[in-house]
Amino acid sequence: MGTEKIPDITISRLPIYLRALQRMAEKGLQTTSSQELGELVGVTAAQIRKDISQFGEFGKQGTGYNILFLIAQLREILKVNRIWDMAIIGAGDMGRALARYQGFLDRGFRVLTIFDKDAEKIGDKAGDFIIQDAARMVKKIRQAGIKVAMLTVPVAEAQEVTDQLVQAGVKAILNYAPINLTVPPDIHVQYMDPATHLQWMTYYL
Amino acid sequence: MGTEKIPDITISRLPIYLRALQRMAEKGLQTTSSQELGELVGVTAAQIRKDISQFGEFGKQGTGYNILFLIAQLREILKVNRIWDMAIIGAGDMGRALARYQGFLDRGFRVLTIFDKDAEKIGDKAGDFIIQDAARMVKKIRQAGIKVAMLTVPVAEAQEVTDQLVQAGVKAILNYAPINLTVPPDIHVQYMDPATHLQWMTYYL
Repeated sequence: MGTEKIPDITISRLPIYLRALQRMAEKGLQTTSSQELGELVGVTAAQIRKDISQFGEFGKQGTGYNILFLIAQLREILKVNRIWDMAIIGAGDMGRALARYQGFLDRGFRVLTIFDKDAEKIGDKAGDFIIQDAARMVKKIRQAGIKVAMLTVPVAEAQEVTDQLVQAGVKAILNYAPINLTVPPDIHVQYMDPATHLQWMTYYL
Repeated sequence: MGTEKIPDITISRLPIYLRALQRMAEKGLQTTSSQELGELVGVTAAQIRKDISQFGEFGKQGTGYNILFLIAQLREILKVNRIWDMAIIGAGDMGRALARYQGFLDRGFRVLTIFDKDAEKIGDKAGDFIIQDAARMVKKIRQAGIKVAMLTVPVAEAQEVTDQLVQAGVKAILNYAPINLTVPPDIHVQYMDPATHLQWMTYYL
């Protein structure tokens, strides 16, 4: 499919389309159009058709997209037609909230374990998980073959823990610490920093 | 300055530059270069120079950028040279985590109040805040002149609450509910949906 050449910006929209399609499917809808999907996600119909057509011919002129079929295709493209095990690093407020979050499984992810270095937290529960000793993090992540981690440690520790995650074989990090991480080129990082997103909006106010 | 014409993608990078510059300032650094800043945030030096030069001549050839001066300029551009009061809607795990989050104030934001519709939660504490009755949300937000809200309610309630926030005069919504919101054109929404960001990364694994 030549997926290597598809722009990042296109890829970044696919999870948003998938999310909207999954909502439609939950409502019992069977087909949709690029117009309808576009209005839902705030993208033009032409852009949606262009984005999706890069991966194949998934829609039919006049009848639109079969929602379940398009969901299956997008899940395959995004590699979430499987479940990715995840580790949470840091059992503070955010780490605990993520440990209890119910929105991962139907989107291709599952929390497997949570780590913290604080002796007072180790052994406590966070959601359904027993908080594990961060000293054993590298070994446990490597043994479990975990490739995806959510990082919720304080800023001062974030880079050091990131280096350990890379060493443990993690390839994708969702970073809640408000700091840019330095990683090798084959490691992916996404940032979940509320203040950054808020500042992006205040510019326009 | 003709700021109307500056692309969204440029604006989206400014909070990231600002965050990195604030870390440098905390470390006691006084000047930086587009190379150094670029390495820190994963953007080319040329892109940084181009982005920043759209707002004026803030750097000097050979001596680079004065960090505190550039911070002040970026804060002004992003309108966070003031403090924006915020409301949190939804006192679940995520709402409570945000109520206790310490990373807002030095970046231009302050939580003022938190609402929930659950009678069992109203009157409880979330961080330093007493959880308020969501039935009074529109009136209280309007009275307080709050323009920024963080939305952490369940998916099924997110659009209805959004409509109320718009009615109350809110102009910027940081949405933690994994659903696209429909808002008037002058309302800004940013999405904080971990599964979407995770799916964006798994494509590349």
